[in-house]
Amino acid sequence: MPYLDHAATTPMLPEAVAAMTGQLGRVGNPSSLHAPGRRARRVVEESREIIAAAFGARPSEVVFTSGGTESDNLAVKGLYWKGRAEGRNRVVAGAVEHHAVLDAVHWLAEHEGAEVVLLPPDRHGRILPETLAEALTDDTALATVMWANNEVGTVQPVAELAAVARARGVPFHSDAVQAAGVLDVRLDGGPAPDALTISAHKLGGPLGVGALLLARGVDPVPVLHGGGQERDVRSGTLDTPAIAGFAAAVEAAVSRREETARRLTALRDDLIARVRAAVPDAVLNGDPADRLPGNAHFTFPGCEGDALLMLLDAQGIACSTGSACSAGVAQPSHVLLAMGLTSDEARGSLRFSLGHTSTPADLAPLTEALPAAVDRARRAGLT
Amino acid sequence: MPYLDHAATTPMLPEAVAAMTGQLGRVGNPSSLHAPGRRARRVVEESREIIAAAFGARPSEVVFTSGGTESDNLAVKGLYWKGRAEGRNRVVAGAVEHHAVLDAVHWLAEHEGAEVVLLPPDRHGRILPETLAEALTDDTALATVMWANNEVGTVQPVAELAAVARARGVPFHSDAVQAAGVLDVRLDGGPAPDALTISAHKLGGPLGVGALLLARGVDPVPVLHGGGQERDVRSGTLDTPAIAGFAAAVEAAVSRREETARRLTALRDDLIARVRAAVPDAVLNGDPADRLPGNAHFTFPGCEGDALLMLLDAQGIACSTGSACSAGVAQPSHVLLAMGLTSDEARGSLRFSLGHTSTPADLAPLTEALPAAVDRARRAGLT
Repeated sequence: MPYLDHAATTPMLPEAVAAMTGQLGRVGNPSSLHAPGRRARRVVEESREIIAAAFGARPSEVVFTSGGTESDNLAVKGLYWKGRAEGRNRVVAGAVEHHAVLDAVHWLAEHEGAEVVLLPPDRHGRILPETLAEALTDDTALATVMWANNEVGTVQPVAELAAVARARGVPFHSDAVQAAGVLDVRLDGGPAPDALTISAHKLGGPLGVGALLLARGVDPVPVLHGGGQERDVRSGTLDTPAIAGFAAAVEAAVSRREETARRLTALRDDLIARVRAAVPDAVLNGDPADRLPGNAHFTFPGCEGDALLMLLDAQGIACSTGSACSAGVAQPSHVLLAMGLTSDEARGSLRFSLGHTSTPADLAPLTEALPAAVDRARRAGLT
Repeated sequence: MPYLDHAATTPMLPEAVAAMTGQLGRVGNPSSLHAPGRRARRVVEESREIIAAAFGARPSEVVFTSGGTESDNLAVKGLYWKGRAEGRNRVVAGAVEHHAVLDAVHWLAEHEGAEVVLLPPDRHGRILPETLAEALTDDTALATVMWANNEVGTVQPVAELAAVARARGVPFHSDAVQAAGVLDVRLDGGPAPDALTISAHKLGGPLGVGALLLARGVDPVPVLHGGGQERDVRSGTLDTPAIAGFAAAVEAAVSRREETARRLTALRDDLIARVRAAVPDAVLNGDPADRLPGNAHFTFPGCEGDALLMLLDAQGIACSTGSACSAGVAQPSHVLLAMGLTSDEARGSLRFSLGHTSTPADLAPLTEALPAAVDRARRAGLT
């Protein structure tokens, strides 16, 4: 059963399962002062150090959250509110951002009176540094451009974008959910984002936990108020088992990062070649070179992506029409439309994404099933 | 090692550990359309049905969140924003609420221009229905009073409060984090809240997951935007393993609820009698009768609660000065001050909370250690 949807969620690494289950039987709220509380606190702080080191951050720059969506909301809304209090009302965001960024940005426009500028990508989904430079003003509260796109896999020129934002004194956030664990995602080392979203379950950790890495001095207004955990930036009882699993996954994924990237790139290129051989008019979307190692995204002209997905699913092959988060919603992808695809081309697209359990054996079933599925989906589209 | 801090967090029930670990090795995003996604979705929806049934709700009235803090923030901010759009700007809250409610309410006042009215409790920490009735106006966006207090254990007259709010047409939220699993917390059945906060880890489920139960027609503005999960009220990838563990814990806890409550009440009354025998001037705080089965909260005159906590911890006894979430913050409890205690009385307080693993054997070590610890804490306070 080839699972070709690692970008939606990837199996937990054995190290992460072990670290997490080792904590499930233990009691102690990390905010409690007694011995069981202090034990839990130690686990949290050791995990924080591991995650910080992996991403070039200080431990104090790691804010634990419930995952990528919350981290994105905290960065976007929190930095906007912070900026608005200082007279800055503009929000600048890539037009190809994940919904967790984009819908938060739209809400700020509709509900909070933010002036929103969406940055158009080029035809590969790339946001050019000059496009960002033109949009930044003295009253810009934040700019946000993802590290790599979750649908088409295009890797953004993050260092250049960060340099542009830094030169204008604008806080720069990047959603690195798809990039962390496979690319060299860092908060330090030359021009880098001021805020980074990381999700555990996309890199082999558990669901329900993530982090917002915040460079020193970057202090968003909280989205979740309460007990004052995480330096008052994010309240809520710290989830010790999930945090331990998150750290174990980060440690394992980042230590093997280059090897994994090399292996997945070769596998992905093989997959692309096989798909093109099986369906000669399939069009690869996203940047042909600067793309996530595990991502292959195609338009199959004349097909409905949803129909194709279900036909492949019937053959035991799991893939996606794009973002799992908006799956089931029969709308063409905003990413593909922003890249200039027509609505029909956008609807006729499918994403195959590889991860740590992918092997060459996953490819043959796909390319064997694909021609008949495409043929059938095309005929269905004609009726 | 007597663990007398179940109100901060309680060990996971074996049923919950089993249900959760059974999912950790499986892959599939519940929003994905393929077979692994549909399998995960089935787990989520079966869990939703179990939780709904346990709390008198329909499955569609259960919104999964990352826990109590997020549920409280969603209810308070979301219902306020919803009401404000309809011209209602007042927020009415109990003065003894958890920080997750109270700090959200204060933020709405300072940041969003809400008119906030805090309801004073009586000396037992109880919010009287007539106090609520006086505070409600036609422009009240929401009222929020917790089901039972996390520090002193006082159970609120929730049905009467809900009836008062309903009569004025004001949405009524209740934080039932401490009550769920030990009291008959329900969304249906006579006057009941329109919104209920539940946390999994307080009733034997995992950390990092909870729910906001929302009666039909109660639609808060989202706090976390994104992929549109949970009927667009709460975005973020659904945490299948944690949700499965949450449901298993709810099912187990609610099915044994009356038996657990009886057992803990007897144990708690024994604890209170022993503490009074050991330290005759100890004062029990909270409602003497209408209190959480597992809660005993005392003022030890002349002591610093923090010092007492550490002295008991040195004897292997885990307890709390109040809310774990604000532990470490050297401020007297807002709950105790609102009940009319002096700052010194508030600082000299300690909470012992029992739960499903508590046994009579936990009591003797406490009452043996307590007299010397109190004596020592008092002498420390005199220097």
